[in-house]
Amino acid sequence: MVNEGEVSSGKECKVQIAGDHGSKEVQNRSERGLVSRIWLGFAGLLSGFMSKLSKLWRNVCGVGSEDPRRVCHCLKVGLALTVVSLFYYMRPLYESIGSNAMWAVLTVVVVFEYTVGATLAKGLNRVAGTFLAGALAIGVHWVAAHCGETFEAAILRTSVFLLASAATFSRFIPIVKQRFDYGAMIFVLTFSLVSVSGYRVEELFELAHHRFSTVVLGTAICMLICIFVRPVWAGQDLHFLIVRNLERISDSLDECVLKYFEDDKTLIDGDEERWKRILKYKSALNTKGTEDSLANFARWEPSHGQFRFQHPWNQYLKIGALTRSCAYCIEALNSSINSEIHAHERAKKHLSNVCIRLSSHSSVVLRELTVMIKTMKKSSSIEISIGEMGSAVQELQHAMKCLPIPPLLPLLVKSQTEITELSPATQANTPLMEVLNLVTITSLLVEISARIEDIVDAVNELASMTGFTESTIDEKKKQQNKPVMSDDQEVQDKNELKILQQA
Amino acid sequence: MVNEGEVSSGKECKVQIAGDHGSKEVQNRSERGLVSRIWLGFAGLLSGFMSKLSKLWRNVCGVGSEDPRRVCHCLKVGLALTVVSLFYYMRPLYESIGSNAMWAVLTVVVVFEYTVGATLAKGLNRVAGTFLAGALAIGVHWVAAHCGETFEAAILRTSVFLLASAATFSRFIPIVKQRFDYGAMIFVLTFSLVSVSGYRVEELFELAHHRFSTVVLGTAICMLICIFVRPVWAGQDLHFLIVRNLERISDSLDECVLKYFEDDKTLIDGDEERWKRILKYKSALNTKGTEDSLANFARWEPSHGQFRFQHPWNQYLKIGALTRSCAYCIEALNSSINSEIHAHERAKKHLSNVCIRLSSHSSVVLRELTVMIKTMKKSSSIEISIGEMGSAVQELQHAMKCLPIPPLLPLLVKSQTEITELSPATQANTPLMEVLNLVTITSLLVEISARIEDIVDAVNELASMTGFTESTIDEKKKQQNKPVMSDDQEVQDKNELKILQQA
Repeated sequence: MVNEGEVSSGKECKVQIAGDHGSKEVQNRSERGLVSRIWLGFAGLLSGFMSKLSKLWRNVCGVGSEDPRRVCHCLKVGLALTVVSLFYYMRPLYESIGSNAMWAVLTVVVVFEYTVGATLAKGLNRVAGTFLAGALAIGVHWVAAHCGETFEAAILRTSVFLLASAATFSRFIPIVKQRFDYGAMIFVLTFSLVSVSGYRVEELFELAHHRFSTVVLGTAICMLICIFVRPVWAGQDLHFLIVRNLERISDSLDECVLKYFEDDKTLIDGDEERWKRILKYKSALNTKGTEDSLANFARWEPSHGQFRFQHPWNQYLKIGALTRSCAYCIEALNSSINSEIHAHERAKKHLSNVCIRLSSHSSVVLRELTVMIKTMKKSSSIEISIGEMGSAVQELQHAMKCLPIPPLLPLLVKSQTEITELSPATQANTPLMEVLNLVTITSLLVEISARIEDIVDAVNELASMTGFTESTIDEKKKQQNKPVMSDDQEVQDKNELKILQQA
Repeated sequence: MVNEGEVSSGKECKVQIAGDHGSKEVQNRSERGLVSRIWLGFAGLLSGFMSKLSKLWRNVCGVGSEDPRRVCHCLKVGLALTVVSLFYYMRPLYESIGSNAMWAVLTVVVVFEYTVGATLAKGLNRVAGTFLAGALAIGVHWVAAHCGETFEAAILRTSVFLLASAATFSRFIPIVKQRFDYGAMIFVLTFSLVSVSGYRVEELFELAHHRFSTVVLGTAICMLICIFVRPVWAGQDLHFLIVRNLERISDSLDECVLKYFEDDKTLIDGDEERWKRILKYKSALNTKGTEDSLANFARWEPSHGQFRFQHPWNQYLKIGALTRSCAYCIEALNSSINSEIHAHERAKKHLSNVCIRLSSHSSVVLRELTVMIKTMKKSSSIEISIGEMGSAVQELQHAMKCLPIPPLLPLLVKSQTEITELSPATQANTPLMEVLNLVTITSLLVEISARIEDIVDAVNELASMTGFTESTIDEKKKQQNKPVMSDDQEVQDKNELKILQQA
């Protein structure tokens, strides 16, 4: 609560000061203070707003520069809408289609997707859903009209309820959900609209015909622009995503093992760059969703580039799954490498060369595979690389057999019954704990090479399915130096690095 | 080419046979053969069709019985459409809204989603997108109308192109893509429709007002039915998905370790059941997409059950990510366990008890965590369980130090330089290769327990964020026996098992 006495004394004080000569200056100063405070507050707000705006602008520029195809896509959508709006602006066209052109605009906005496959899937689903639902709705309407006015409304209402429920349920069936989800939704939409509006409008056939033709028109415009103006193919994106994931795990594997066996001090200089390479495998861990949806859209795409219609996209998914299972092992390897337990130096040195050799041979096989998939040509040297990887595994196993662990000696001279009674001081020197990490790393490296062999098998299957041709050595070298085209995953890489840097 | 001679002799032959007495019988028989062949073909087709139909029916029944909430959702969609179609059938309502009721039907079909969060997200996006775009379009139309007829069309066309491109581009910005993707699409749709149709229709305000009110009406119907008729909350689903994933990895961990250390012969009997338990972790590997989308929708949901509006859903995502990282380790553990290298029996026996103890303590901690999250109550015994897990880790490390590997002896007596010259026969007996797998398994178990501690920290953070209350022991026991509600992941579990069985 405010004290009344304080308030009145405050008033008196103001009056007294105002009466004084110097008081004006004080008042002016306080007013100027107020003005400057308001100005400062306003300037603060403005600068805050400007900094937010500049951050947003950087964000927007980043989104565009990461993948310039996005900017192109936006212009394509604008173009498609401009083309379709011509039906409104041009009188002859407007008169032939009339206000139904609204459906064409609606179709363009809803159907135009980033990749050709997604646009085709949505467009064909929309056309098929509209046609089927329209035909069925007219049929139901005809039956209802012949049952007399009493039953007409009841039949129409019941049919909407039943068919909408059934079509919605069908969207839960895996195959429908995967391929015809949008079609099922459009079926419900069209059936409801035609049945319901059919109760009023007598010219049902004309309505259905107009609606269908405008939907076809909108879909056709989308498809033509999507396919012929700088197309983005889902199949090609899937192809490069698989290649990129293989490259990522290959880089991570190499760098992980080098980091562990090389002197740790070297990491201080090229820290960020090396961490970036080590953690590359992380982006391969979570691409299942993207792979599935790209494969799903790629199935709708016509023959393009190296890919024919009905290319074996499922085999790409299989390679993707095997790559991920390899990435899981690299995850475990990475955590072993970053473990705080320091390995026994002599044992580490003993295994250093063989481990690095195995990891580098494994990486070479992975890189050969990326070149094979990228060029869609058989590799003449992959068999040799696999052989080298196999012999590196054997060398590692041989080196493990000869692993020098001298301090284990005093322990092992005693019998098992004696061991449990050993003094803690003796136990503290036991070396198995020191090589524990090293043993885990070698065993994971062997496991990784086994998983790479599974990937090789899957890629060979793909080669036989699609008929990879033999490659010349020159071409292979050219491809090895060529970077994979940018895609959404590049963005993900950068984001992940940012998160890691912030952490 | 057909040989003429053959054809003519064929004709002669037919004439001769026809002239004969017995020929009729032959002809009849051949006709009957044809009829029976047609009949058999038809019956084959019919039975094939029936078997496909019955398979589809089983599939449909499976989809419904796996999650009965799906059937309920379909009936809710049917109900919402029936309610909205009343605006057509009832004359007084029809006259007030008229043919614009079409937009309400369209809104219901497009906005009604499975979870409340998704419906709210889509509905509010639709309303906001429609309002903003409508207002902007009227503004642009007003400006264009004041610029004279020459510029009007140009301004409208340019504005459609620019705004559609800009709004489409904004859909690539991560925060817009995550939360306002649908709103941006509706913005483009409404702006195009109002701008384009504004060129013809003079009563723009009325059109925009009608369109907006019908969209609000459709959205309101969807929201009311979605929230008040057996609601499916995305937040609750996310909550149970996280709990279920923790349960899965807990079961897998337990069973994996038991399978390795127990006699393998026991696996023959309860094969399928045990394999199912061992491979449970696999479904936890790929739930990132589902978790992200559920958390995204849960943010829109009002307070429900134990969850308030703006519940810390991001923390659930963090727990989910940590659970997955634990699952990656179990993947590596599983492949080590299924390795063909047989461990040294004495060493295995020596570590058996401590390993089983560690895995069972780790599982207990995981189960305590599931109960904590499920009941949203602090656990009085979790600290004890974590302590027990920690001491089990120390016990395991102690046991590793005392690991008996007697055959290593002859090797280690020699110096390192001599080792390389050992005969292959001596090397064949080297035991480190025999314990390699065992060492890897123990080291992975230690890593898993470290990762479980990270999950514990994340769950404790969640507890402090949402203010978990203290639980009584009785309640905890009740919750431990209660199964988690069925969700989409249950289906995934079954599908994965099927795939594994087929493989």
